[in-house]
Order: sequence, then C-alpha cells, then structure tokens
Amino acid sequence: MTIETLLIIGGGLIGSSIARAAKAYGQAKTVYVMDNSPEACTAIERLGFADGVSEGQADFYAAQADLVILCVPPGRMGDVAEKVIPNMKSGAILSDVGSIKGAVIEAVKPHLRKDICFVAGHPIAGTEHSGPEAGFAEIFKDRWCVLTPTEEGLEQTQILKTFWEGLGSDVAIMTPERHDIVLATTSHVPHLIAYTLVGTAVDMETVTQNEVVKFSAGGFRDFTRIAASDPIMWRDVFLSNREATLEVVDRFIEDLTALKRAIRWEDGETLLEHFAKTRDIRRHIVDAGQDSSTPNFGRDD
Amino acid sequence: MTIETLLIIGGGLIGSSIARAAKAYGQAKTVYVMDNSPEACTAIERLGFADGVSEGQADFYAAQADLVILCVPPGRMGDVAEKVIPNMKSGAILSDVGSIKGAVIEAVKPHLRKDICFVAGHPIAGTEHSGPEAGFAEIFKDRWCVLTPTEEGLEQTQILKTFWEGLGSDVAIMTPERHDIVLATTSHVPHLIAYTLVGTAVDMETVTQNEVVKFSAGGFRDFTRIAASDPIMWRDVFLSNREATLEVVDRFIEDLTALKRAIRWEDGETLLEHFAKTRDIRRHIVDAGQDSSTPNFGRDD
Repeated sequence: MTIETLLIIGGGLIGSSIARAAKAYGQAKTVYVMDNSPEACTAIERLGFADGVSEGQADFYAAQADLVILCVPPGRMGDVAEKVIPNMKSGAILSDVGSIKGAVIEAVKPHLRKDICFVAGHPIAGTEHSGPEAGFAEIFKDRWCVLTPTEEGLEQTQILKTFWEGLGSDVAIMTPERHDIVLATTSHVPHLIAYTLVGTAVDMETVTQNEVVKFSAGGFRDFTRIAASDPIMWRDVFLSNREATLEVVDRFIEDLTALKRAIRWEDGETLLEHFAKTRDIRRHIVDAGQDSSTPNFGRDD
Repeated sequence: MTIETLLIIGGGLIGSSIARAAKAYGQAKTVYVMDNSPEACTAIERLGFADGVSEGQADFYAAQADLVILCVPPGRMGDVAEKVIPNMKSGAILSDVGSIKGAVIEAVKPHLRKDICFVAGHPIAGTEHSGPEAGFAEIFKDRWCVLTPTEEGLEQTQILKTFWEGLGSDVAIMTPERHDIVLATTSHVPHLIAYTLVGTAVDMETVTQNEVVKFSAGGFRDFTRIAASDPIMWRDVFLSNREATLEVVDRFIEDLTALKRAIRWEDGETLLEHFAKTRDIRRHIVDAGQDSSTPNFGRDD
C-alpha cells in the first residue's frame, strides 16, 4: 500500500512542510490540510500546496485519507484525535509529529478504533519560525524521523517509514520512553535553558534591553533564536515530558554549579578540561551531517 | 594622525581578521603580525595578508608601529604588554581585543609608559572557529566594537574609533565595569551555559553519545556550536570576569528554578507568559541587524 490521499491536521511549520514535501516528492497523490485558524486556511489556499483546505471538521477529507497526520501542539492531540478518528476509513493509518511521544500516545489511545493503526512519530526538524508560510519541502532532508510504534502494526510502521524516507528523512524506531529521555536531552532542555537565559538577560536591572540587543553577537543571539520558537507548543512539551525534563534539568544545574564553583575558586584546570571535551562532540555532529561547519557569522552573506 | 604601521600580536581568529581588514579597507599601510606559535606563523605567511610575520620578540616591528593591538587570550595580556611596551615608539597607541576589560586593564597598567596611551577595546564579533585560517576581513562589518578608555587619551580614542569604523564596525564607548557586566550577560554566561549543557548531555548514562549526535537538530546543535569556541580564551574570560559572571549565573539559576517549579506544578500559565516574552527580544535583534531572520536550518543549502 502506498499513500494515495493524505490528510494533515494543523497546517503550521511542520504540517505545511509535510504537505509540500509529500507533493514535491510524490509521496501522496492528494493532500488535504485542515486547520482551525481561518487566517492559516486563507494562507494555505494562497500558497497553493494543498488539494483542499478546511477550517472545520473535515469529515469528508478524513473519510478519504489513507494516512492522517496530527500536526497540532502536543496538548491538543487528544481532542483532535477524538474528533477525526470516528470519520476515518477502515484500515487507514493515524500518525502525529509531536515532540513528545509518551503523553501523546496516552492522549490518543482512548479514542482509537480496532481498524485504525496509530504509529506515533516525530520528525527532528524545524526552524524558529511558525505558521504555514514558514514551511518548506526540504526541511526533512537528511534529518531523523523517530517512529515509536507501540502495538501490532508492523506493516503500517513500514508504510510510514517509506513515507518519511520519501520526504528525505532517515527513520529511527524506538520506544516512546527512550524517545522522551533522548529528546529531553537534545531538544527540550536546550529550549528551556534558552527561554530562561533570554528572560534573565531582559530582567537584569544592571543591563538595558538596548545593550542586550546591541551586543548580542557575542553568543546571546543564538539563544534568542531558539527562544523564539512557538510558545504554546513548548509549554505543552514541558508539561507532557515533565519527568524526563526535570531529570535532565537537575543534572544540568548540578553541572553548572560545579563549573560555578570552579570559577569562584579560580580552578582553571577544571574549566579547561571541561571546555576541551565539548569541542569533540561538535565535530561528531558536523561529521554526521546534522549541522554545517560554516562559521556562524549570523548574517545572510 | 592615521595608522601607517600596525602591529598585531596574536594572529588567531580576531588578530588575523584585523590584519586582513586593515589592509582590505586601507586602514593601515603596513601590517605586521607576531605570533608565538611557529605553525601559526607559517600559516600567516602562506595566507599572505601580512607585510611581515615574526615568531619572536618583534622588537623591530614594535618600534615602527603607530598602533599595537594585543590579540592574545586575556590571561596572557599582561605578559605580552610587558614585553612589547619597552620597544614601542613614543606617542604610539596600544590597544587589545580582550573579551573582558577590567582585568586586562589591571594587567597592562603596571607596564605602561607615560608616552604610550592604552585604549582598551573589544570587537563583539567572531565565529566558533580559531586560528589564522579562520579569520576574514568582513567579520567586523556592522558589529559593535566597545572601547573603554580609562585615562587621558581623547585624541587616541578618536583615532582608534576611526580605525574600527574603517573596518566596518560601530563603536561604543563605556567604562570597563559596565562592559564587563553587559558582556557577562550577552556573551560570557551564554558560553558557560552552552559548555555546561553539552557536557551534561555527553555524561547522561541514559542517552548514548551517538543518540545525542543523531538527534541534535532539535536545538542541541546550536549549543555545541557555541561550546566549540576556544577553550583557553574562555577559561581566561571566566576567571577574569568572575564577579559579573557569577552574578549573572546566579540570576539564571534562580530563573531556571522558577520555571522548573512551574513544570513540576504544571503551571502552564507561567510557562506561556515567560516564553511569549522572549520572542519580542529576538525581533529587536533581527531589526538591529545583529542577526538574520533567515531560518536556521543548520545546513549549507
């Protein structure tokens, strides 16, 4: 089975990118998009990457789709699943793109039907921008997409794997629990820290906001990029991946406290040892094609 | 007075960039570079941006220079100043590019002569790469350069201001104390946090290094870029700007603890309020030309 008809629910950065990529790389013949925001629907119609756009229930689209992908914030997955599942055709596949997997699976499970297979997924891709205008077809190229199948559904997992590979992704299969602790480390806590630091800087009474902006090229601006990501999505991520996030944050605070102590006691040895170690991991990331070695000059040219 | 002859001591990322820019934009007729690493000297000769390269004392170059700029790690500024100042010609200007100003001024002051004016400086520019190969002439364009003159030296400050403006920079004048607290916020603590988080991730027993590398596109890779900066320079920065760094780190830990508490108690309101606020500062940074709004896709293409 290949995907003839695809329904994307939530036409934001990721949803609109999947729609564009599915068409561009021939991974679906017909692509429908549903979004509950009238502004988003108008934009999607104007951008022209979907064969049909609906602001409402999209019962008609759901009934045709071989694959329905939920691209809404994690906190809304349960509600959206409850509405769309009764309208889906027998044998169709349901998936999602939520940045946490355990909580999303819990939220969707009560609404599942025996003849609909849910294979949860998470493409590790994105930018700091939001909305249908921000999406683009190449966003998943050479990025990892994690699938966390929980029940019988080997065949459906294979179909979804082929779909994501068709969009240019590498696919990794793991348990929802493992996904959530790995992503807490590589994504959720980095975002929490960036959000925190940007807030700390803005609140410093000894430094004006104008100074923070002017002298941001010294490192701070990279944090502001991360901290410009969609607030609602990230609130939901932290609340839904609470345990793993708090575990990694606690470890981070321990480590920061140790380096703080080294600074206070002028222990240059400890600092140097720590800083030299972190260069190595950067090299691995560039080698693995997950970032470019082009220096970050922070400008277009 | 304009700069006829410039001596750069330390031909790394910043030093080699000043040498290149001074020639490219006609801000000095003759540019000499001194570096105590034989490998760096060989590279500088091969790259061909200097009129003379010396691995040793460079007494001859120092005697000719109208402007000498110290581009060595903050911890070495005092020693280098002690060696070069006796050889400088009367009326010449001494400056530096150290990321901290209070401690550098303290280190240089004991070695100053009455007929040499020291105007400390800090160009807020750079990339995560190091060494003479990493430099380029455009690195200072549209970036801020802070000058922190402490004594009589209005005329010399004006000459240095014109020099940096000639390299494309905007110049800000402030006290060393103010510079150090502002930069602790916008640069030093962001680097310390990036170094810490990368270490935390690598040390997590529940997550393999391979997973950290594979799934780094979710936010982590931006931290690894910052944490790939020169370890020796950053050790010196933290040790020399101890008070301000610790003050900002403590504020950051307080704020992170508050957000951690909000996550633990599922207080979505507090999280959302905080995250929405930080988007605003990003917009200001992009508007001020200190970063591009191009989405960070993390790849060349």
